[in-house]
Amino acid sequence: MAVHHDGRHAPAAHVVIVGGGFGGLYCAKAISQHPVRVTLLDQHNYHLFQPLLYQVATAALSPGQIAMPIRAILRHRPNVTVLLGTAQGVDAARRRVILVDGDELPYDYLVLATGARHGYFGHDEWEPLAPGLKWLDDALEVRRRLLFAFEAAEREPDPGIRAALLTFVIVGAGPTGVEMAGAVAEIARHTLEHDFRFIDPTRARVILLEGAPRVLPTYPEDLSASAERQLRALGVEVRTRALVTEITPELVRIGDESIPTRTVIWAAGNVASPLGKTLGAPVDRAGRVLVEPDLSVPGHPEIFVIGDLAAYTHQTGAPLPGVAPVAIQQGEVAAENIWRSITGQPRRRFRYHDRGNLATIGRAAAVADLHLVGLPLHISGFVAWLAWLFVHIFWLIGFTNRMLVLIQWAWQYLLAPYQRGARLITSRCWPTGEEPARVAEPRSRTRA
Amino acid sequence: MAVHHDGRHAPAAHVVIVGGGFGGLYCAKAISQHPVRVTLLDQHNYHLFQPLLYQVATAALSPGQIAMPIRAILRHRPNVTVLLGTAQGVDAARRRVILVDGDELPYDYLVLATGARHGYFGHDEWEPLAPGLKWLDDALEVRRRLLFAFEAAEREPDPGIRAALLTFVIVGAGPTGVEMAGAVAEIARHTLEHDFRFIDPTRARVILLEGAPRVLPTYPEDLSASAERQLRALGVEVRTRALVTEITPELVRIGDESIPTRTVIWAAGNVASPLGKTLGAPVDRAGRVLVEPDLSVPGHPEIFVIGDLAAYTHQTGAPLPGVAPVAIQQGEVAAENIWRSITGQPRRRFRYHDRGNLATIGRAAAVADLHLVGLPLHISGFVAWLAWLFVHIFWLIGFTNRMLVLIQWAWQYLLAPYQRGARLITSRCWPTGEEPARVAEPRSRTRA
Repeated sequence: MAVHHDGRHAPAAHVVIVGGGFGGLYCAKAISQHPVRVTLLDQHNYHLFQPLLYQVATAALSPGQIAMPIRAILRHRPNVTVLLGTAQGVDAARRRVILVDGDELPYDYLVLATGARHGYFGHDEWEPLAPGLKWLDDALEVRRRLLFAFEAAEREPDPGIRAALLTFVIVGAGPTGVEMAGAVAEIARHTLEHDFRFIDPTRARVILLEGAPRVLPTYPEDLSASAERQLRALGVEVRTRALVTEITPELVRIGDESIPTRTVIWAAGNVASPLGKTLGAPVDRAGRVLVEPDLSVPGHPEIFVIGDLAAYTHQTGAPLPGVAPVAIQQGEVAAENIWRSITGQPRRRFRYHDRGNLATIGRAAAVADLHLVGLPLHISGFVAWLAWLFVHIFWLIGFTNRMLVLIQWAWQYLLAPYQRGARLITSRCWPTGEEPARVAEPRSRTRA
Repeated sequence: MAVHHDGRHAPAAHVVIVGGGFGGLYCAKAISQHPVRVTLLDQHNYHLFQPLLYQVATAALSPGQIAMPIRAILRHRPNVTVLLGTAQGVDAARRRVILVDGDELPYDYLVLATGARHGYFGHDEWEPLAPGLKWLDDALEVRRRLLFAFEAAEREPDPGIRAALLTFVIVGAGPTGVEMAGAVAEIARHTLEHDFRFIDPTRARVILLEGAPRVLPTYPEDLSASAERQLRALGVEVRTRALVTEITPELVRIGDESIPTRTVIWAAGNVASPLGKTLGAPVDRAGRVLVEPDLSVPGHPEIFVIGDLAAYTHQTGAPLPGVAPVAIQQGEVAAENIWRSITGQPRRRFRYHDRGNLATIGRAAAVADLHLVGLPLHISGFVAWLAWLFVHIFWLIGFTNRMLVLIQWAWQYLLAPYQRGARLITSRCWPTGEEPARVAEPRSRTRA
């Protein structure tokens, strides 16, 4: 590879980015400002604003409001090519990304940003019973199950089965679990309040299970306590130090206790994308690649790993959390370090600037752990919710979507409280052929 | 059945309505104002504003913007029960609706409003190759195929296959086919114009096939001619007197000619719901029930059939067209006739008040055949499009949705022309396991 310092008179270096999440997208935006060729490969055609995915799962937003085609975001950068495809490995020796269909993408520099998926702690058999939330399809499946449970309960004559249909268990009380539990409680208590005739949705049970001693275990203790209070005020049953030992189509077991339920949502545990392991570089127990201080892979200065797929331990000793700001900042530093290499400058060491964390619990309820000019600031309730709203609107990628989501939220908050505009059961509807296995009881009564 | 004239002192009559489309929903709204018990059964949990379904298929609107949960629409009518379920037949002798899961719904009065689905003129094997547009899932599948064809073309090295991937064939030039063809042409010419690097989307071919001598064959001839001109201006290849004789994963055949394509959209032909035949009443060739002047079934005054499932021939000699206004007016008259029977009054004869027909062709292009105070008025172009916009916004059910869709349309029209906010490929993405059969070519090149 013969690249001149100014990058102009040699063939432009080819930077391949795998993954169009926060890390990959911000890396593509940053590196494409230089005279390089960029190819961004993703298995989906959209960038997903994952922090709002639970709002799709709970029918408050439509998929189109939190996702945008990657190629639309990058359309005015002529040196960027976006390809739809799935990588299955990296041939680091030959500098090629191998796609599942046999295609190969040669690169000069590679940025791996394929993230993580929810993991089941060795119980992969739980996945069909307890779907998690990573992609739009997950969210639509969770939405379908939530809404369908109420529909099935309305037609169910057996009181025990009806009660199980109206019991919703969320496993894991990190930000996603807390947000899901709050939203499900609001659906039952408010959105569906007047919609049924044979059941009372407001008596549905929403149970949030957490193995750690408190909810939001990575947050400061006072905010965990506040979040738990706010959840209980919404009617959520919060159970900490509760380790799930079994999930079946009929129940969730915690030690000797079993909770009859037909709807379990998984919000615990993450496993890194399998692509990291194909590099031949050291990975941690969660499959994350242990990267160098400049975010490159040991022994491969031309390969960078960022975001949830990376374990960056050079700042605090422990890996940085798997949140969007880490991925964004790493994407930008990886881009800078690639350009520094091309132009013969020394690379920068990555340093995460943590501005805090926010988790919303329901309508006008949230907790915020903010780091402003070095000072920690813990806020709860309505003010924290406003902060959450502001930050998420601000970061929402794509101006059209951002404004329309803001309008929709304002509308819902001011004029149609607790209405949820996307309460649609698509793709599979009971009781046609593809009836879900968990509602397999014969029903043979008549209803007048 | 002992029902008193005022309906108050006897057990309220039970009216069962099957189908929550325009006919069933308006019937439920009308009959529930009287002291009767109403049960509305539908196989989906949502009412769909079908005239805008092509906008979901072409990524302009999200499903949540044109569909609303039926039980949310009817939530404040305590005498209405909404059930999610699929009817498989009517036992008219025992006055029961039989559901596919064995449940039975006894009724005093029954309104069948289960509509029609697209038919393939005896070629059911074409359905997986050429999906039609009736439900949200259909529209999402068409959207997926449209968007995916461009993605696959971007990665396709073979020029012949690439050209086939960029050829879109719409079969049938009724209002749905015309609207689809116009929208697909706009996607290719405008929405995707800058999004690709290896292909030029503006060179995609959009071919509209119609067996009749002109597009919009049920419209006045001058409007057909205008529609064809507007379609050609958008770059659509209009082919009339073109009868499809074969569809394969690789081509559409018209007589001896074959058009290589990977994306075919079916907009021709309708077949009535199979439920009509289970009544044992006379049906026409399309499976529609030949109803009496009061919309009841011959020999069963307690059963009404309305909307696309009914063949009402008492007004013009031919069946009324399968459009929303017919279904709505019939739903209201069926409700009135039920109440007249309960209260011992003679029934009304149905008469359709036709206010005209509208078809939109693209951004600011449409044709309208209006009947105002008995005078026919034919308009085309921008004014017709404004009329279309006004009528559809006005009729869109659900006030929240209506205003938000208006805002979104205004936004798209004024500030972000040709952007389409819902360009998401969900549920199946190439090239993972579930790769669609029509893109089965091995690909074994490298791309730098």
